[in-house]
Amino acid sequence: MRLSIQQLKSFCTDCLMKSGLSIEAAETGADVLSVTDSWGIHTHGVKNLRGYIRRVQAGGIRPNGVPRIEDQSSSWVKVDGDAALGMVAADFSIRQAVQKAEQCGIGFVGLRNSCHFGAAGYYSWIAARKGCIGVSMSNDIPTVSGPGSRGPVLGSNPFSYCIPTGDDRPILMDFATSTVAGGKVFAAAARGESIPEGWIVDQDGKPTQDPGKFPNEASLTPMAGHKGYGLALFIEVLSAVITGAAVTNQVLSFAFEDASLPTNHGAAFIAIRPDLFMGSGLFQTRIHSLIAEIRSVPVAEGSEQLGMPGDREWNYRERSIRDGIEFPEAVQKEMELLSEEMAIPFS
Amino acid sequence: MRLSIQQLKSFCTDCLMKSGLSIEAAETGADVLSVTDSWGIHTHGVKNLRGYIRRVQAGGIRPNGVPRIEDQSSSWVKVDGDAALGMVAADFSIRQAVQKAEQCGIGFVGLRNSCHFGAAGYYSWIAARKGCIGVSMSNDIPTVSGPGSRGPVLGSNPFSYCIPTGDDRPILMDFATSTVAGGKVFAAAARGESIPEGWIVDQDGKPTQDPGKFPNEASLTPMAGHKGYGLALFIEVLSAVITGAAVTNQVLSFAFEDASLPTNHGAAFIAIRPDLFMGSGLFQTRIHSLIAEIRSVPVAEGSEQLGMPGDREWNYRERSIRDGIEFPEAVQKEMELLSEEMAIPFS
Repeated sequence: MRLSIQQLKSFCTDCLMKSGLSIEAAETGADVLSVTDSWGIHTHGVKNLRGYIRRVQAGGIRPNGVPRIEDQSSSWVKVDGDAALGMVAADFSIRQAVQKAEQCGIGFVGLRNSCHFGAAGYYSWIAARKGCIGVSMSNDIPTVSGPGSRGPVLGSNPFSYCIPTGDDRPILMDFATSTVAGGKVFAAAARGESIPEGWIVDQDGKPTQDPGKFPNEASLTPMAGHKGYGLALFIEVLSAVITGAAVTNQVLSFAFEDASLPTNHGAAFIAIRPDLFMGSGLFQTRIHSLIAEIRSVPVAEGSEQLGMPGDREWNYRERSIRDGIEFPEAVQKEMELLSEEMAIPFS
Repeated sequence: MRLSIQQLKSFCTDCLMKSGLSIEAAETGADVLSVTDSWGIHTHGVKNLRGYIRRVQAGGIRPNGVPRIEDQSSSWVKVDGDAALGMVAADFSIRQAVQKAEQCGIGFVGLRNSCHFGAAGYYSWIAARKGCIGVSMSNDIPTVSGPGSRGPVLGSNPFSYCIPTGDDRPILMDFATSTVAGGKVFAAAARGESIPEGWIVDQDGKPTQDPGKFPNEASLTPMAGHKGYGLALFIEVLSAVITGAAVTNQVLSFAFEDASLPTNHGAAFIAIRPDLFMGSGLFQTRIHSLIAEIRSVPVAEGSEQLGMPGDREWNYRERSIRDGIEFPEAVQKEMELLSEEMAIPFS
C-alpha cells in the first residue's frame, strides 16, 4: 500500500472524527501522525492510531477533551491536558511555549493529564516553523532499566529539539534515552531475529539477545549507561514530577492497560527565540556557517558525509511528498484492521 | 599530599590573587576548583589552575575582567564575560539565571567571551542551592568526532543539571557528550595503558586503543553515536551560535594555544523554579517519592543499589570534608610545580 501524505492524513482524520473528536482535534492528531510517517518514523505514526482510538472509544482519552491553561506567568504556562488525545494536548502546549517566547524570549510549558503524544520532534518542529528553537520531552511507562537494575525504572523518555535555519530543513533531533527504541525490539521479534547484545537486559539484569522477552521479561538499557539514565531522570522530573502528571509506574500504557482510564502522561516544552542575543540575520549566518563547516568534514572510508540531525527525515519527507508513503508490513496490517473496524476506506 | 577543602581553596585563592585577580574573583575561582576536587572530579579541579594562571599572566584571561550584562529582558540575560576567568563569568551568569527565575519562573542566560569554566555541575549546583533546577552547558575546542568523521567536529560539550531536594544532596548530573571525557584518555596514556575500543578513533576515523594518539592524531567518539553528536550540536548552538561566542574551531584551548589570546568559550544556563506548578512542599514530596522508589529497585547480582546522579560526588565530598582530599599523582605534580612557580606553600 502506498498513500500520499494527504490520503494518510485524511484517513486518520476520518477515523478520529468517527470516534467523536471535533474536526479541529482530529486534524491536529492526523497531522502529527502523517508527518511522522512522512519522516519515515513508522514506529510513532499511524501504527498507533488503532490503540489511540480504542482508548477514545473506552473513555481513557476524552474525545471532547479540551486542554486548558491552569496557571501562567509571562514566561511559563501550566497546561491540564484534560485527558484529550496526546497530540491535541501537546500541540496546544508547544504553541503556548512559542507565544511566551515571542513575548519574552523564552517560554516553558508543563503539561499534565495528557496521553502518549507520538513523536516528540513534531512539536519541536512547530516551534521551529514559528522561528523558535523548540524543545519537547515526555515521560512514559517504565521500560528502561537503570545501570545494574533488574527491571525497568524509567520510560524511554524522549528528548527532541528543532533549530530553525530559515529554510525548510531545520535541524531536527528526536531520540529515546534508551539504547534503542522499544519499537526496534518489537520489530526484531516480529521478524524472528535476535538482537545485538546491549539493547535489553532480562529479569536478572543480565544481557539477552532474545527480543521476545521484551517488555514482560526484559527491559531496554539506558543509552550510554548512566548518562542516558541521568538524562531520562531529568526528563521525568521536568515532564512529570513538577507538572503533577503521573510519575514512572503511575503512568498507564496507552496500548496495553485498561483503556477506560486516563494515562496521565506528562510532558515539557521549551521555546527560545534564537535571535535573542543578536539580529535574526546574524543568527542565520552563524547557523549556516556551522552547518557548512560540519558538512565539509572529511569522513572515514565507507562512511557517508557527516550530516545534520534531521537530514534523514527531510530526505524521507521529500520522497514521501513526491512518491507517497509505503508502510512496513506490521504497520499496514494495523491500518487495514483499523480501516475495517471503522468502515473507513483509504481513499 | 592531603589537604582540607579549606586549605585547597586558600591555596587556589592565593595563587589567583598573586596573578592579579581581586579577592572576590579569586575566591570565586578557588571555590569552583576546590568543590570540584571535593567531589572527586580531579580532571576539572586544581589540576587546571596552572594553565589558567599561565593564561592570566599572558593576558588571554583578564585578571580584572568584569562580566557584564549586555542586554536583558524579564526572563533572559546576555552576558559578556569580558575574558575574565571562566569561573567568574559562569558564576555571574548562573546567578543571573536564578534571579530571572525568581522573578518569572524561568531564566535563560547566554554567555560569550568566557574561558574554560571547569565543571559545569558546579554552576547547576549554585542554582539548586537557591531552590531552582539549574542547567549548565558549554562549548569547547573540538575533540569529538561525529559519526563517521575522520577528525574532531565538536567539543566534548558538557551538559549538567542539578535538582534541589530540600536537603544537602540535590540530584546532580554532569556529563561530557563524548563516550568518555578526554581526561580519562590522558590518564590512561600517563599510566601507559591501552584503552577500550570505542573511546577514540584515529585520523582515518578507525577505532584505536592507543591513548597516546589523542588529541593530535585521534578524536573522542560521541556518546551513544548520533545521539551524543546531536546533543553536543544542540549545546554548541545554545552556548555559542546564539550567544556570539566562538564556534567549534574558533574556540582556543585554554591550555595549549597562545595564552595571550582570549579563548572566547560560550556557555548557556537555565534556571527553573521547581514549584512553578505546585507548592514547594508538594514538589518535595513528589521528588522524594521518586528518589525512594528508584533506590528500592532490585538490582542484578553483583551490582550496587541503583543510586541518584550525584551520589558518588556527595559521598566523596562527605569524605573530603571529614578526611581532606588526596590527589592523583599527575594532579599533585601540577600543584607542586604551581606552588614553586608562585612561591605559595600549601598551608
